[in-house]
Amino acid sequence: MVPHLITALNGPINELEQRLLESTPAIERWFRLEWMEHTPPFYSSVDLRNAGFKLAPVDTNLFPGGFNNLTNEMLPLAVQAAMAAIEKICPEAKNLLLVPEKHTRNSFYLSNVGTLVRIFNQAGLNVRLGTLDPAIAEPTPLALADGSSLTVEPLVRNRGRLGLKDFDPCTILLNNDLSAGIPSVLEGLHEQYLLPPLHAGWALRRKRQHFRAYEEVAKKFSKLMGMDPWLINPMFASAGELDFAEGQGLEALQTQADALLAKVRRKYKEYGIQEKPFVVIKPDAGTYGMGIMMVRDAKELAELSSRARNKMSVIKDGQEVTEVIIQEGVPTYERVNDAVAEPVVYMMDRYVVGGFYRVHADRGADENLNAPGSSFVPLAFAESPHLPRRGEKPGASAPNRFYMYGVIARLAMLAASYELEVTDPEAEVYE
Amino acid sequence: MVPHLITALNGPINELEQRLLESTPAIERWFRLEWMEHTPPFYSSVDLRNAGFKLAPVDTNLFPGGFNNLTNEMLPLAVQAAMAAIEKICPEAKNLLLVPEKHTRNSFYLSNVGTLVRIFNQAGLNVRLGTLDPAIAEPTPLALADGSSLTVEPLVRNRGRLGLKDFDPCTILLNNDLSAGIPSVLEGLHEQYLLPPLHAGWALRRKRQHFRAYEEVAKKFSKLMGMDPWLINPMFASAGELDFAEGQGLEALQTQADALLAKVRRKYKEYGIQEKPFVVIKPDAGTYGMGIMMVRDAKELAELSSRARNKMSVIKDGQEVTEVIIQEGVPTYERVNDAVAEPVVYMMDRYVVGGFYRVHADRGADENLNAPGSSFVPLAFAESPHLPRRGEKPGASAPNRFYMYGVIARLAMLAASYELEVTDPEAEVYE
Repeated sequence: MVPHLITALNGPINELEQRLLESTPAIERWFRLEWMEHTPPFYSSVDLRNAGFKLAPVDTNLFPGGFNNLTNEMLPLAVQAAMAAIEKICPEAKNLLLVPEKHTRNSFYLSNVGTLVRIFNQAGLNVRLGTLDPAIAEPTPLALADGSSLTVEPLVRNRGRLGLKDFDPCTILLNNDLSAGIPSVLEGLHEQYLLPPLHAGWALRRKRQHFRAYEEVAKKFSKLMGMDPWLINPMFASAGELDFAEGQGLEALQTQADALLAKVRRKYKEYGIQEKPFVVIKPDAGTYGMGIMMVRDAKELAELSSRARNKMSVIKDGQEVTEVIIQEGVPTYERVNDAVAEPVVYMMDRYVVGGFYRVHADRGADENLNAPGSSFVPLAFAESPHLPRRGEKPGASAPNRFYMYGVIARLAMLAASYELEVTDPEAEVYE
Repeated sequence: MVPHLITALNGPINELEQRLLESTPAIERWFRLEWMEHTPPFYSSVDLRNAGFKLAPVDTNLFPGGFNNLTNEMLPLAVQAAMAAIEKICPEAKNLLLVPEKHTRNSFYLSNVGTLVRIFNQAGLNVRLGTLDPAIAEPTPLALADGSSLTVEPLVRNRGRLGLKDFDPCTILLNNDLSAGIPSVLEGLHEQYLLPPLHAGWALRRKRQHFRAYEEVAKKFSKLMGMDPWLINPMFASAGELDFAEGQGLEALQTQADALLAKVRRKYKEYGIQEKPFVVIKPDAGTYGMGIMMVRDAKELAELSSRARNKMSVIKDGQEVTEVIIQEGVPTYERVNDAVAEPVVYMMDRYVVGGFYRVHADRGADENLNAPGSSFVPLAFAESPHLPRRGEKPGASAPNRFYMYGVIARLAMLAASYELEVTDPEAEVYE
């Protein structure tokens, strides 16, 4: 089966979409059984790339920003999912401490925090914001674009508990991905729920572990669906230690990239795909679309300018890149008004709660759209991923496409659950 | 506190609405704690009456029809709630047998069944329809108004299990309220989940038990909110056995009605309400808006015409009325385009999944709008009850009103949960 996914709203027949729609009850039951064995991340967002011949997740964020990009019509799903999540984790919960990123001057990010506060308020929690920023020594109001404001407060640590002045939360929710390392104030909390766990942060998390888990999930799911896992799985390889600035380890990287390009080329040949394959090099730890490079020919790596090498060597919060993964490049052929678009799906607990298109007028189908400086435009999914219309012409219906996106995004979320089990430093080992 | 509820979209200040909004986290937590102790009905719908000075549930349906009246935008909430419900009851579930009402010629009702099938398909279940109608001896397709069709099949009972030919369900969902009695085919099922339980059907259920439970819930909730429970509780009384056709028991009914009218009058005086109180007499068992009478003066009961007495004596499925409850009449002052409107809230598991207005151009504010023959017009809530806007002027915002309706409807659902515990014939008694 070669699924020709949608490349535009009125694109060609989409076999994968059709197959997923026909199998909805089986797929939903499969997820239900998986969630009996595995715990979903508290929340997540997944970047997808739809190449027409392939649909794959390329990034799974366990500290999602961008909840502000969901439509008001979708927020009730988030409220309901938050209620379900809280009920399972800590049904008596009264107070929630939300720990946001430090870059509190970014009004888009603040609006995301405001949306999260609204969702958890509505789910029955008093929410207050505690910051890891040592520069904030007293409650500080921050203005939002809509005229409202949020107050961030300094954290107060008392032996095993973390809170704010006069605020003792049962649960601490991180919306800070810990790229800068694990702050000691978050360590050794025994009496409170810390979500997501510390090892989900980029201080410890590695993309290769995620995509290894995703490969396993994709294989399982593809067996259920009777299809080639490659159709939903981006192949990857990881290189050893490297130092872009000093040029160390680049040769090994080149060898790995060359081997991966050859594997992609074979797959393209198998499916009669006429395009030129490419791979993407990205930091093994970290996010924010920094330190990312597209490579069509591994030789390019031998000829990197020192400027390009420097650009690859340092990412968010000034972290040095010493490990990368090389991932099969999946072009995105979704278009919104001629601009390249990449779907992003948001989940809370096991539920898809919404999504949007990251639309970027100045970039190509093979480029990273999550650029620093946020020059992308979010375009909320107009309809819910929950209501596919089974009778409609494949590839021609937005709700059906959103359902397909929701399924693939949930596979990535399930992979994150597998990943966090494997990497849990406190996990007991049964042999 | 006298709350002046909304009587129109731009009505007067609404203290109750404001109080509920301000207390959202506390209210949601309160419900969360209640659901730790009590099991929500699988699904339910609640008819509310908004009198401006009082907001109360007047009917709690445990076999809700009318899911077709919810908007497409709201169905995702139902899908998500169905997923949560199934996960708790029978996570391995693959097949669901839905048992609808027998009146399969009503295209509105069929459309409701079609919507339920769609919701449960999407939640990961194969759904088939089994009918209690002995006239249906083989799979029979029924045409829906939208051009699609549903197939109802005869039930097949095999010792402890109920199913269809080649269809063995893990769960049986009744959308038939058992007004006609409990069919033997449903009795003694030990190996399957039967939802709702048999004692939730009108063969055994009694309104007085529901409203007794609701009174308890309303008192608890009103204590949390620091308000008079009467503001959300319709007072009621029950008369003994009676026979409308023969005129037996009408004197006792008159005495009870008179006493209840006096109680309502006292409350109206306490709150300075200028209207003339009335009570509603309805069958203690049964639904469908049949056998209902409004009484402003108990003497009316002594002067009933034989036609009026006959009309009161027989309801749905030809059931004779031998017990009634007398309920405080709550006028509804909601209007949609000058027509009297009554909000109906739909719930699945513990979640509000939508609602609509029952709008009736020919009826008065003190009349029953759920008339047989369905001459009401359903008008779906335009926005979700999950997203109140805290800053808005009380009484002027539809989302805020919907939130308030969702809270009161959930109190009635919680009462149904209390009620089903008390009336469970298989409950163990701990003393």
